[in-house]
Amino acid sequence: MNGAESALHTAQAAGIDLCLANPGTTEMPLVAALEGVPGIRAVLGLFEGVCTGAADGYARMTGRPALTLLHLGPGFANGIANLHNARRARVPLVNLIGDHATWHLGFDAPLTSDIVSLAAPVSGFVRTTTAATDLAGDLAAAVSAALEPPGKVASLIVPADCQWEEASGPAPFAAPPSPSAPDAAALAAAADALGAGERCALFLGGDALGERGQRAAARAAAATGSRLIAETFWRRMERGAGLPAVERLPYFPEQAMEALGPLSDLVLVGATEPVAFFGYPGLPSRLAPEGCRIHVLARPEEDAEAGLEALAERVGAAREAPPAASAPRPGPASGALDPATLGRTLAALQPDHAIVVDEGATSGLPYYLLSAAAPPHSFLTLTGGAIGQGPPCATGAALACPDRRVIALQADGSGMYTLQALWTQAREGLDVTTVLCANRSYRILQIELGRSGITAPGPKARALTDLTHPEIEWCSLARGLGVPADRVESAEGLARALAASFSEPGPRLIEAML
Amino acid sequence: MNGAESALHTAQAAGIDLCLANPGTTEMPLVAALEGVPGIRAVLGLFEGVCTGAADGYARMTGRPALTLLHLGPGFANGIANLHNARRARVPLVNLIGDHATWHLGFDAPLTSDIVSLAAPVSGFVRTTTAATDLAGDLAAAVSAALEPPGKVASLIVPADCQWEEASGPAPFAAPPSPSAPDAAALAAAADALGAGERCALFLGGDALGERGQRAAARAAAATGSRLIAETFWRRMERGAGLPAVERLPYFPEQAMEALGPLSDLVLVGATEPVAFFGYPGLPSRLAPEGCRIHVLARPEEDAEAGLEALAERVGAAREAPPAASAPRPGPASGALDPATLGRTLAALQPDHAIVVDEGATSGLPYYLLSAAAPPHSFLTLTGGAIGQGPPCATGAALACPDRRVIALQADGSGMYTLQALWTQAREGLDVTTVLCANRSYRILQIELGRSGITAPGPKARALTDLTHPEIEWCSLARGLGVPADRVESAEGLARALAASFSEPGPRLIEAML
Repeated sequence: MNGAESALHTAQAAGIDLCLANPGTTEMPLVAALEGVPGIRAVLGLFEGVCTGAADGYARMTGRPALTLLHLGPGFANGIANLHNARRARVPLVNLIGDHATWHLGFDAPLTSDIVSLAAPVSGFVRTTTAATDLAGDLAAAVSAALEPPGKVASLIVPADCQWEEASGPAPFAAPPSPSAPDAAALAAAADALGAGERCALFLGGDALGERGQRAAARAAAATGSRLIAETFWRRMERGAGLPAVERLPYFPEQAMEALGPLSDLVLVGATEPVAFFGYPGLPSRLAPEGCRIHVLARPEEDAEAGLEALAERVGAAREAPPAASAPRPGPASGALDPATLGRTLAALQPDHAIVVDEGATSGLPYYLLSAAAPPHSFLTLTGGAIGQGPPCATGAALACPDRRVIALQADGSGMYTLQALWTQAREGLDVTTVLCANRSYRILQIELGRSGITAPGPKARALTDLTHPEIEWCSLARGLGVPADRVESAEGLARALAASFSEPGPRLIEAML
Repeated sequence: MNGAESALHTAQAAGIDLCLANPGTTEMPLVAALEGVPGIRAVLGLFEGVCTGAADGYARMTGRPALTLLHLGPGFANGIANLHNARRARVPLVNLIGDHATWHLGFDAPLTSDIVSLAAPVSGFVRTTTAATDLAGDLAAAVSAALEPPGKVASLIVPADCQWEEASGPAPFAAPPSPSAPDAAALAAAADALGAGERCALFLGGDALGERGQRAAARAAAATGSRLIAETFWRRMERGAGLPAVERLPYFPEQAMEALGPLSDLVLVGATEPVAFFGYPGLPSRLAPEGCRIHVLARPEEDAEAGLEALAERVGAAREAPPAASAPRPGPASGALDPATLGRTLAALQPDHAIVVDEGATSGLPYYLLSAAAPPHSFLTLTGGAIGQGPPCATGAALACPDRRVIALQADGSGMYTLQALWTQAREGLDVTTVLCANRSYRILQIELGRSGITAPGPKARALTDLTHPEIEWCSLARGLGVPADRVESAEGLARALAASFSEPGPRLIEAML
C-alpha cells in the first residue's frame, strides 16, 4: 500500500465519500488510488474554484467534509476565492494539494511555489507531509481539524513521492469533541438581556439558523417580546411556511444601523458582532448603536441549538414556538421581469424541500421576503463576498442531496467567474435549476459608484461596470457546457420554464432577462 | 487631488498606459480617477485571471508593465495562477489591489483576508499603503521595482481610504538602472567553454531569445562548432525564416537528458540551469549529464544580448550569423486533423509578424518544428505551467500590438480555465485567432498516468482525464461571449477558416476537432 492508498482508505474510514478533483501530474498516485476506494466518489471540475465551491456546498448540506484534489500552488490558488467563502461559512473541508517530490522541490522547477503562504489565509489547518509513512496520519489529522466545531478548512500539501512511496497502511481517525453548550454565566447574561424586551435582539448565525435553533429562539423571543435577527450572509438557513419569522440584517450600513438602532442589548448566537461589509467615509464599522450591550450566548464554535433551548427554558417560554404571522404564499407574477416579479414567481413555484443557493446579488434581494411562506427549503448565501460561489455551491449541494431540487438564483456578473460548474452539473446529471438574472451589469458597483458620490460616471467607469458590448448569451454558454437552457422575457415565461425544469431530472439554465 | 488620482497620474508619468481591471467596491475611487487620466486605457476582464494573464502578454510584447486593478484578497487570488506564469516569465507587472479602509480592517468584515500572504509567493515586491499621502510614492516604487531587470511582479495593496483621502499630488518616478553586462570573468569562462565545440551548448532564455541575442549566439556557435539550445518554456522567442536554428530543450526528462547527454559544458545565457518539469521516480532533477560543467554568461537580470555580442567578438566570430539551414516553409496539410496536420497548416498560412501564443499542450507540440520557416513571428509560451494562460496572454499581446495578428494555439482543457478572455477580445475588437485544439481530454495527464505505470486506468482515472460526457461545444461558448466561431474537421477546413480570420479584423475562434 503506497502513501496515496493509505490516505484514501483513512479518509473513507473517517466518513469521507466525495472527492472534487482537478488533478495534475503531481496527483497521479492519488488519482490511481481512488480506484481502490469504492466508497469515495470522484467528480471532475474543469476549474479549481468549481471543486472548492462544491465542497463548500456539500459541507453546508451534510455537515461533513469533502476532499478537494488540487494541483500545486497555482491549482490551489484558483480555488482560494471559494475557500475564502467556505472559511467564512465555517464549514468542514479538506484540501489535498499535490506538490513536487520532496527531493525535487529545491530545484525550483516552473510549477514550484510557496503553497503554505497561499493556503494559510483561508485555512484553519495547514500541514505539509514529509514522508509517505506520515501521509495517512496527516490526512486523519486534517479531517479531524476540519470537523472541529464549527468547521474548518484544512489544507494538506502532499509531495508526489509521499503519495507513491510505500506506506504502512491507514491511520486511525479520532473525531473531535462535539461543541460544548454555553456556560451558565453566558446563559444568565443572555436571559437578563432578554429582559429588555423589544430593545433586545437575538442575533442568529451558523447553527442557530437551523430549524431547531430558530424554533428555540422564537420561543425565547415570544416569551420576552424580543426580536430575532439573522446575520446578513449565513451558511444555511432553514426557511419557509411554518418556520418562525426572522428579520435579516440589511446589507447596506445605513439600513443595518436603522434596523439595530432601537436596541439596548444584542445577544450573539452562533454569529459574531455585526459589522459593515465595507467601510465608507463618515460611517462606522460597528453597526450596533453606541452604548448597545453585546452579549455572547454561543460563539460560533459552541452549541447554539442547546444554548437557545436552555435560554427558552430559562425565560419560561412556552413549549411550542408561536406560529409565524407571515403573508400567504404569493402566486406567480405576470408581466415584465424585474427582481420583484422574478422573486415572486420563484417563491410561488419552487418545489417542496428545495435548496436555494442565492448569488443573485441585487437581482436576488426581493426573493428573500417573498419566499417566507414558500414550502420549507434550505437557503445558502454568499458568506465571504467572493463572487463566483453560486454555480459551484449549487453543484455541491446537489451532490449532497440527490433527492432535492437545487435552485441557483444567480447574478450574471458573478456567474461568469465559475460558469465551468455547469459542465459538472451536466456530467453528473444534477438536479440544478439555475435562474440566471441577466441585468447585463455589475449593478452593485453602479450603486456603489453612486454611494461614493459619482452620480454621473464617465465612460471608463461605465465601461468597467457594464456587461453589454457584447452581451453575454447565457443560453449559448450553458448549451456549450452541456446544460439545456431557455431565455425568458416575462414572468409568465419564467413560470413555464421553472415548471418544465422542476418536472424533469438534470440541470437547466433559465436566462431571465431583467 | 485624492490618493487614487495621485497614483494614476504618477503611473501615467512613469509610462503606464493600460489598466486591466476587475474592480469592486474598495476600488471605486481608482475607477473614478481613471476618468481624469486619459493616457491610461481601462479594459475590463470578467475574471481576474484574464486581467493578470493579459498584463503578462502585454509586458512580453512591450517590455513595460500594465496595471491590474483587483478586488481584495479573493479577487487577487483569482489572478494568482497567471501571476505565477508572469513571475516565471520575469515580466514587469504592477498589481493594484484594493483593500478595506485602514480603520475597517480590524473588524474582520467578510471580505477581509491576509493579502500579503497571498501576494508574496508570486511577487518580487509587496507593499501595503498606509496613508493617502504615501500612495503616489508607493505606486512609483512599485513601477520601479517591476522594471528592475529582468522584470518583476509588483503588488501594491491600497486600502480604500488611502484612495479617497486627500493626497499632495503625483510622486517622482525613478527608472531602475539598466541591466549590467556580464563581467570579464564570466565572458572568459564562456569563451573557454565554447572551446569544447559540439560538446558545449549555449543555453538561451529570456532576452537571449530576441533576434539580437539569437544572431549573436549563432555567430559564436558557428565560430566554435557549439550548439544553441533554448529553454523549454520561454517568455518570448523571435522565430521564423532568416533566424538562426535553435534547438528546443524537450519537455519530458528522458528526452531532455538525451539532448543534453553529449555535453561537457553548458553556458547559461538569460536562463537558469535546466531541471525536470516534474520529479519522477528514478529520474534526476538536474537534466545536464553528471560532470557537465555549468557556466553563467548572463544571469536573467544581466544583459544577455550584450554578453552574447561580446562573446561572439571574443571567439572571433564572423560579423554575420550563418544562414539557418531550415526546411522550406511547408504548404498546408490535407486530410484529417491531428497535431501535425494542424501545426503544418498553421505554419503554412500564418501572416507575417504574427504573435503566436502557445498553450496547445500536446496538440501544439509539432507546430514548433514546422514553423521554423514561417514568416518572422513572436512565440510566447506557458512559462510557469499554470494552465489557463493562453486566452488572457493572447488578449494582452493584442492590446500591446494592435497592428499584428495574434494566434492563440490553445488546448481545450486549459482553455476552459480562462475562457472569459474571449469576451474581452470581442469587446475590444482584438485581432486574435484562437485555434482551439479539441482533443476532448487532458491528454497530458493520460500520458502521465501511463508514465506512472497505470497503463490501463480504471473508470475513475479515466473520468478525471476525459472531457467528453458532455462534449464541450467551443463554438457555442465563443458565440456566447461575442466571438464568431467555426468548427473544422479537416486540414482543408482549418485552412479556410484561418484564411477567413486572417482577412478580417477582430477575434475568431476555430474549433479544430482532433
